[in-house]
Amino acid sequence: MRRIYMDHMAATPIHPEVLEAMLPYLKEDFGNPLSLHYFGGAPKRALDEAREKVALLIGADPKEIIFVSSGTEANNLAIKGVAYAHQKKGKHIISSQIEHHSVMHSLKSLEKIGFKVTYLPVDKNGLVDPGSLAEAITPETILVSIMHGNGEIGTLEPIAELARISKEKGVYLHTDAVATAGRVEIDVARLGVDALSLAASQFYGPKGAAALYLKKGVRVQPLIDGGIQEEGKRAGIEDVPAIVGMGRAAEIAKRELPSRMGHLSGLRGMLIDGLLKGINRVYLTGHPERRLPGHVSICVEYIEGESMLLFLNQKGIAASSGSTCTSRALKASHVLLAIGVDPAITQGSLVFSLGKDNTKEDVDYILEVLPPIVQRLREMSPLYEDAMRRSV
Amino acid sequence: MRRIYMDHMAATPIHPEVLEAMLPYLKEDFGNPLSLHYFGGAPKRALDEAREKVALLIGADPKEIIFVSSGTEANNLAIKGVAYAHQKKGKHIISSQIEHHSVMHSLKSLEKIGFKVTYLPVDKNGLVDPGSLAEAITPETILVSIMHGNGEIGTLEPIAELARISKEKGVYLHTDAVATAGRVEIDVARLGVDALSLAASQFYGPKGAAALYLKKGVRVQPLIDGGIQEEGKRAGIEDVPAIVGMGRAAEIAKRELPSRMGHLSGLRGMLIDGLLKGINRVYLTGHPERRLPGHVSICVEYIEGESMLLFLNQKGIAASSGSTCTSRALKASHVLLAIGVDPAITQGSLVFSLGKDNTKEDVDYILEVLPPIVQRLREMSPLYEDAMRRSV
Repeated sequence: MRRIYMDHMAATPIHPEVLEAMLPYLKEDFGNPLSLHYFGGAPKRALDEAREKVALLIGADPKEIIFVSSGTEANNLAIKGVAYAHQKKGKHIISSQIEHHSVMHSLKSLEKIGFKVTYLPVDKNGLVDPGSLAEAITPETILVSIMHGNGEIGTLEPIAELARISKEKGVYLHTDAVATAGRVEIDVARLGVDALSLAASQFYGPKGAAALYLKKGVRVQPLIDGGIQEEGKRAGIEDVPAIVGMGRAAEIAKRELPSRMGHLSGLRGMLIDGLLKGINRVYLTGHPERRLPGHVSICVEYIEGESMLLFLNQKGIAASSGSTCTSRALKASHVLLAIGVDPAITQGSLVFSLGKDNTKEDVDYILEVLPPIVQRLREMSPLYEDAMRRSV
Repeated sequence: MRRIYMDHMAATPIHPEVLEAMLPYLKEDFGNPLSLHYFGGAPKRALDEAREKVALLIGADPKEIIFVSSGTEANNLAIKGVAYAHQKKGKHIISSQIEHHSVMHSLKSLEKIGFKVTYLPVDKNGLVDPGSLAEAITPETILVSIMHGNGEIGTLEPIAELARISKEKGVYLHTDAVATAGRVEIDVARLGVDALSLAASQFYGPKGAAALYLKKGVRVQPLIDGGIQEEGKRAGIEDVPAIVGMGRAAEIAKRELPSRMGHLSGLRGMLIDGLLKGINRVYLTGHPERRLPGHVSICVEYIEGESMLLFLNQKGIAASSGSTCTSRALKASHVLLAIGVDPAITQGSLVFSLGKDNTKEDVDYILEVLPPIVQRLREMSPLYEDAMRRSV
């Protein structure tokens, strides 16, 4: 069966060169990087090298990279770690209504212990208004955490501007770049951020390796205490093979970024145009232009996204309906609600997140297969019939 | 050059069958286990299967296994997670003076926010006295955390008895079994513990995968918030390849445990006997019998362990001097101080942690190589000359 993978926000395949780079550390170079003997040597050097490569991807200094196990952990460390370390200054944090669950739930757990959080609204395209950030900052504010790009609707936030405002008021800004790092150009200095999360499994690297960029001088309290790894900011034996894989994936992403972006933006345009023309009562969600290359998110009226996913899956197409982290939870997406989508329609959400190996033929296949599925599901849906009758 | 690895407490080589089991998940089965489509299927099934195998290794139910990224994270989750979740009942915790840094520093960070911790002393062999635990428990006590076995001195603690005492007083008992799981038989029901940490990289599995056994009904507050992974107790995309590797490693360990234990206990006896006979002014640290199979720890008077390690390394032998996590920090070991070793002598600590592939020939080689190294270092040491002169 022909299989088309268009769920790259959930996970990306590992680049063959990445796996090749990892293998020695899954075999003979298995040692603990902290060991003072021969077997600690190669792993230690490999860690240093991976740190340089990850730093290079985002324009950071290697000393500003803290390796962790997932983008989720990076977000937790940035938010809770900075909040705990700076709570004497104040207990107010500003975020947005469309953050990833790892940010949202980190904030919720801080609220339970006395922190106050302001969740900035977004417009119908998912953009945070920089003016609203300026207004929300108080003398109690210690941290702003706003994502670089949204995995459900693809919108890219004006982080440079938000960071400039935060800096003027002396407040740290963290950005969750898990959905964007390796997909669009990122330079931490140009963005002006103090902390940034990224994850290898989003750019053809392995699961198990992610990083928090933490600008020199920004204090953070570790979430995981123990040994002296990661300059005391994240204890536990380093997952050397995964980290090496992340380094190699970062190196390849850096090199291939312009061509990947061009390729994916092209396919994105074709897919969006085709879907909007080929299916009636379908809407693009997120920003029409300021969006992740390769990211196509729509809402189809009067159909459950999950039914469409099942039918697409039968045709060999892997897509998603909103956030993978809650895909088994079947709750209405907080992101879609925040951009003002009618709760009844949020259920009809579909996300195609394309990757470097997708082709024009893949897009054509989706455009051939999806409209009849929608048609068929609507014929089965009393809700839709009802709506059609009323709208005549 | 002949290379002999005797630092299995720092890391173990990955079993070739473990790597083989991991490979599909580093290649075609790269999907996110939460995805509802085809690409989520194999990873999801693999996670379930790995959970069963890890549970089987320690006699647990698969639902009681929480996968995390390292033994250090497992200890942090057990201690801080249980402490946060039960602090309304009380804020007193009991531990021992010889715990791993991940336990010690988790406790220190709890002390900073108002928890009280009693650190039970140990005897000269490193054993906690169960009577002292009974005396230390107060109505405020919510958790006891005492290790199953010590990586620096090899001593195995009387956990079943300590757990019985805790249970009588209605207090949870967590045990750090990172040094012991996969090395000695463990059955959580027979031990009677409420939580137990274990790590794949200690039993020929990969780095990046570890687990916390948490007895059904024991509440824990997550350290890492976000998605619904691990029943909401540990968010973040699962490191499927590493977890699959842990499952396979657990399965092999379960099967080979009796033969590994027999083999390693034999080599241990030979190495200890040979070292005590072949070098003067050398002492075994830790318990002479109740100790990890394959674990040999000694203190050599008037020599820096690090110098011995460097010379051993030149001869192709990889050993350790106390805890790897602080091996680059060069502090006197808190474990050796706790068993009453003279601070001046703790510097002369050497740990040989043997593994399943070590042989009698390896032991013979150590016994051939080490005594002349000690001799040579002592000839270079004014301290030793001085001591010898005084002792005549």
